[in-house]
Amino acid sequence: MRRLRAGIVGGGAGSFIGAVHRIAAELDGQAEIVAGALSSDPARAAQGARDWFLARSYASYAEMARAEAAHPEGIDFVIVATPNDLHLPVARAFLEAGIHVVCDKPIAFDLPQAEALVVLVRRTGRLFALTHNYTGYPMVRQARAMVKAGAVGEIRKVLVEYNQDWLMDPIERGNQKQARWRTDPARSGISCCVADIGTHAFNLLESVTGEPVSSLCADLSTFVPGRALDDDANILLRLRGGGKGTLVCSQVACGEANALSLRIYGTKAGLEWRQEDPGVLVHMPAGEPRRILRAGGVGLEPAARAACRLPAGHPEGYLEAFATVYREVIADIRRVAGGEAPRQEYPTAEEGLRGLTFVARAVESARAGAVWLDL
Amino acid sequence: MRRLRAGIVGGGAGSFIGAVHRIAAELDGQAEIVAGALSSDPARAAQGARDWFLARSYASYAEMARAEAAHPEGIDFVIVATPNDLHLPVARAFLEAGIHVVCDKPIAFDLPQAEALVVLVRRTGRLFALTHNYTGYPMVRQARAMVKAGAVGEIRKVLVEYNQDWLMDPIERGNQKQARWRTDPARSGISCCVADIGTHAFNLLESVTGEPVSSLCADLSTFVPGRALDDDANILLRLRGGGKGTLVCSQVACGEANALSLRIYGTKAGLEWRQEDPGVLVHMPAGEPRRILRAGGVGLEPAARAACRLPAGHPEGYLEAFATVYREVIADIRRVAGGEAPRQEYPTAEEGLRGLTFVARAVESARAGAVWLDL
Amino acid sequence: MRRLRAGIVGGGAGSFIGAVHRIAAELDGQAEIVAGALSSDPARAAQGARDWFLARSYASYAEMARAEAAHPEGIDFVIVATPNDLHLPVARAFLEAGIHVVCDKPIAFDLPQAEALVVLVRRTGRLFALTHNYTGYPMVRQARAMVKAGAVGEIRKVLVEYNQDWLMDPIERGNQKQARWRTDPARSGISCCVADIGTHAFNLLESVTGEPVSSLCADLSTFVPGRALDDDANILLRLRGGGKGTLVCSQVACGEANALSLRIYGTKAGLEWRQEDPGVLVHMPAGEPRRILRAGGVGLEPAARAACRLPAGHPEGYLEAFATVYREVIADIRRVAGGEAPRQEYPTAEEGLRGLTFVARAVESARAGAVWLDL
Amino acid sequence: MRRLRAGIVGGGAGSFIGAVHRIAAELDGQAEIVAGALSSDPARAAQGARDWFLARSYASYAEMARAEAAHPEGIDFVIVATPNDLHLPVARAFLEAGIHVVCDKPIAFDLPQAEALVVLVRRTGRLFALTHNYTGYPMVRQARAMVKAGAVGEIRKVLVEYNQDWLMDPIERGNQKQARWRTDPARSGISCCVADIGTHAFNLLESVTGEPVSSLCADLSTFVPGRALDDDANILLRLRGGGKGTLVCSQVACGEANALSLRIYGTKAGLEWRQEDPGVLVHMPAGEPRRILRAGGVGLEPAARAACRLPAGHPEGYLEAFATVYREVIADIRRVAGGEAPRQEYPTAEEGLRGLTFVARAVESARAGAVWLDL
Repeated sequence: MRRLRAGIVGGGAGSFIGAVHRIAAELDGQAEIVAGALSSDPARAAQGARDWFLARSYASYAEMARAEAAHPEGIDFVIVATPNDLHLPVARAFLEAGIHVVCDKPIAFDLPQAEALVVLVRRTGRLFALTHNYTGYPMVRQARAMVKAGAVGEIRKVLVEYNQDWLMDPIERGNQKQARWRTDPARSGISCCVADIGTHAFNLLESVTGEPVSSLCADLSTFVPGRALDDDANILLRLRGGGKGTLVCSQVACGEANALSLRIYGTKAGLEWRQEDPGVLVHMPAGEPRRILRAGGVGLEPAARAACRLPAGHPEGYLEAFATVYREVIADIRRVAGGEAPRQEYPTAEEGLRGLTFVARAVESARAGAVWLDL
Repeated sequence: MRRLRAGIVGGGAGSFIGAVHRIAAELDGQAEIVAGALSSDPARAAQGARDWFLARSYASYAEMARAEAAHPEGIDFVIVATPNDLHLPVARAFLEAGIHVVCDKPIAFDLPQAEALVVLVRRTGRLFALTHNYTGYPMVRQARAMVKAGAVGEIRKVLVEYNQDWLMDPIERGNQKQARWRTDPARSGISCCVADIGTHAFNLLESVTGEPVSSLCADLSTFVPGRALDDDANILLRLRGGGKGTLVCSQVACGEANALSLRIYGTKAGLEWRQEDPGVLVHMPAGEPRRILRAGGVGLEPAARAACRLPAGHPEGYLEAFATVYREVIADIRRVAGGEAPRQEYPTAEEGLRGLTFVARAVESARAGAVWLDL
Repeated sequence: MRRLRAGIVGGGAGSFIGAVHRIAAELDGQAEIVAGALSSDPARAAQGARDWFLARSYASYAEMARAEAAHPEGIDFVIVATPNDLHLPVARAFLEAGIHVVCDKPIAFDLPQAEALVVLVRRTGRLFALTHNYTGYPMVRQARAMVKAGAVGEIRKVLVEYNQDWLMDPIERGNQKQARWRTDPARSGISCCVADIGTHAFNLLESVTGEPVSSLCADLSTFVPGRALDDDANILLRLRGGGKGTLVCSQVACGEANALSLRIYGTKAGLEWRQEDPGVLVHMPAGEPRRILRAGGVGLEPAARAACRLPAGHPEGYLEAFATVYREVIADIRRVAGGEAPRQEYPTAEEGLRGLTFVARAVESARAGAVWLDL
Repeated sequence: MRRLRAGIVGGGAGSFIGAVHRIAAELDGQAEIVAGALSSDPARAAQGARDWFLARSYASYAEMARAEAAHPEGIDFVIVATPNDLHLPVARAFLEAGIHVVCDKPIAFDLPQAEALVVLVRRTGRLFALTHNYTGYPMVRQARAMVKAGAVGEIRKVLVEYNQDWLMDPIERGNQKQARWRTDPARSGISCCVADIGTHAFNLLESVTGEPVSSLCADLSTFVPGRALDDDANILLRLRGGGKGTLVCSQVACGEANALSLRIYGTKAGLEWRQEDPGVLVHMPAGEPRRILRAGGVGLEPAARAACRLPAGHPEGYLEAFATVYREVIADIRRVAGGEAPRQEYPTAEEGLRGLTFVARAVESARAGAVWLDL
């Protein structure tokens, strides 16, 4: 038994998500990041590695994959925190070097790359986790467990939203690094808003309900003049089980910071969860008063309880939810190392492919005039 | 100067909305209900009139219209609180008798009837008000005034919802009078959910934004087996000014009581209003902290201030908002009586026709497989 | 059966509470205000009476009491809406004329006057109601019923607050009529803040818990320079049953409008109610998730249900709660007229005396340096 | 530059706070716990050290202090996470060994010990930080900065609360380790509730307002039969600057989890912060609408911004606030190592002494019948 060793590609200075991955991966004391190729700019990569006290810094991910595979105390897994266009090549380099991969979402640049990655993961037999971090929240786990246990009954209506406003002005024309690559088709792919945050909302919906979306009708918009990709979407959904709903996402919703939310209405109960107040799940059983379920509190399913580090009233947030995804990946790496089967409680490459299929269909629907397409 | 005299058709025992109209019409002390044809059942009509201390009770609306028109102290206006199928005939009887009309929504049974009513109102020159009561809330007035004053900028996204759960079980098979007629195509028309509450949401959206919906794509559902009309809808919207959005309504959203809400996101600010907490309007100016505007409080536009009866912290509710619609109707009746032009700050027959056009297009869209239609 | 006839003394132009009494008394259609002595200024009194369409206007309350007692269609009850110094003389005039009285709080100018009034009420046998209107809220009734039914267990802690900010500046030096008399010892008595709003909080506490406060330690302050009476208080309380708590009130709490709230913690449950969101009662049963009880919703006690006019999700507010007090007074007047015993579900003269005793003890405690006194 | 090395005494299995310290100390990647004396039971200590992958495990804190001081890669600082009675001896051992100390609150078992510790810290010249972790929240920093900048004006009223319910039943009679020592005078000192959570509330109040409490009147209670120490308190406060207020704390407030809150009302603005929704600070400027300030959002003071790791809408919680205290301690250790003066932005031994003085006076006041005492 030892702390696992992790490496990271991307995520250096100017990246929001790099520091998040570092804290999340290490938070439970089960892993330590020891190696990195933090930037394509060698000086920045080296500086980043010093800031993080990394034992080994590399100028390229390819070199890193080779060297770590050969190192006697090489990394157990790598974190891919680059723009979308590099997800596949970076993941391939490490998977083929026998190293497990934790990858940021969306899984890849486009649908063919996502399909290639699924094949690659199966072929190499390495673990692959996609950081749909919002599913790591205890009350998301609670919602999922309640749906699974039948507490909601048959699902009739699902309303999922993810509204932000950080791209409401054309900040990509300035120096904002994240805005630049996300609005650039060459690095981000065919979509900005749907790919960046719509996929989180979609994954949350399918993950909690356990029901696949069977068709959609997507109205995508680009509100900021001169922008090449979508910055807003309103999408009608139908679920395989007969439920219906909407998925709304926006990067131009003035005043909204990170307003991801999920509401599910079934024949037995309704559920409501809001990411900006993540420790609360409103349970609305038919014919009874609402109940406020709280992280760390009474009345939780085991799956939710397991995702709580603190008792009720001690708020856990975004980093802790992210860390829960890592905790499960790390536990699986230990299982696989010990000859056990992995449990894969975190999002996998297949879920990533599903997310990119959603992006592709949404864009296709919108381009055809917001028509219905099967998914 | 005297209190105006009002009459009411429908709204007797078993009606929710009858008592609401009575309180709202009289709340500001400017009118008194003195006559009624409260039920098609003569005994119930008489009992209802006694309960309300009415001076004159009638067995039919036709008789009432004739008699009141001839009475030296006849009513100044009539309230139509019947099921939808009677709106046109009742309104016609009174308008043609020279009596102003306040009518429940939706304006009529179907689109042709709504068109006939608009013509009738113009021809008779009498006042006609439609009780889209939610527009009477001070903070709805505030939102409208802010949009008009340019505080929101160009509207990009509008999210309007109206979710309830009272029809989540087939209660129309039992004795629930309101459920019976609303789910009955012979009395309610071509829609239940969209006509009953979707029209409120639609009116709220157009009334606050001042922008007409130009097209829609409507996915209507009937979730309760055996029900003839819709009990749920998810609708994509496009506004004439280029904004987009969704209108979601449901009568089967388990756990929701009367969750009407409106969110508007523009280039300068966002606004959020929720009917179940009606005294609050969240103002989200771009690049600044959110502001909580409160009924009766500081920072309100004159139109909002005029709709407040009490200082901040003294909650006003549904009845007061309803009463504000009546207050404006009564002021107009006084103006017309004094030879002045009416101001028509309340919803008119034209808005009622607009609402029924929305219902017709939504049903048409849904029947064609949820396709886009102009409005 | 007929609508009752009411009169009002005070409450004319410039008064906040006059219009409130008018709406509340008439809201349920069981009474109509027909006579008034609205101001000590005859011209204002006459104008006020015209504005309200009153049948009879008087220049003085004494004349009004005589005339109404003699009138064949004289008033059934009178509403006393004057400053505190007139409560006793006005109430006496009407009680002795055989007319029931509804009186604003606090019951009288000082403790001896309050005692005199209690004696007077008993002697005349007329009904006397004190408008501690906040007890009219459905969810306050729910809290009271739950405590009475044992759902809270033994009460350990009670936290009651009433914070406002309308007197945070010396507005009494200007033209603000309400501020002028409330801060004037000659009209208001020995206290401003504790008498005006502290008594509401105190009444709410004793009314809901059913437990008398047995002792207090009161720290009163006058924060605005030059003001003669208190504008803030922090008070420790002990209850007869062994519970303890605090009563906090302020008229200088910057940013608070009308923040009356009550929290009760017992051995079996906690309860929380906030007047600014009055339709919600948070029920915190030991070892279970919180439940959100809502006015008009499921899970209510009969006493709460009876105080609801509308189904859940249709907010009722301050005026409706006030009207509920009137509804119960009117029902009692009908009972007494019919030879039945009154039920006195509204606050009585005894509760008014209790409130003024609280004011007297709080002021006495503060003057002695915030020491403990029995109550 | 390297990660600092930390040790921990106490905090092993069964401790809530041990794991919290570990995560908080390591969260920003600036320190790593390498050594520990996790339990007085050697087997448990060893097992705990293995679970945390510690390089060195000790059977006693005395041995640890000696060995680490002598170790070439010995710890830079030690974390004291034992019951209160051990704070002084443990801290002394490490301070005298030249090792900086981070200590849980309250600072010591009693007032003389606290005074001894202050002297010891001054004599040894080592850094000493007290983990009043709640002051680490960004919005607490924001409140403090706003008060300091004069945005609140002169403070008139302060309401601070800390309510929990975990001791509402006599769980100390069972196996609950934390309840056992906290309710045991031999380990906890003269107070349970006031010492455990009242000190947090007191520190929050003085830290944010920058104003010392000058006197208090404390009503302490023991509601659970058989318990030796207080489990509830209601305390009147007066501040040196003329403001007044209440401090309320409870461990028997049924339904409350960790309800620490602070409200400040001044001549220019009010502020409200609630630990269970820590990312929000309500700013109530006089005569303007309320503003919702949010962690990571716009309108923050530099001190608040510096305490945010994530942008608005990405909730940070209890662990992150705790980690901010550690971040500042670690920065000071680096400063001192580099010959710079420490900044001491975290609570110091003097604040710890102040807290224990508050406990002593509160208990003394209560024993004398809840009388006023200077502080």
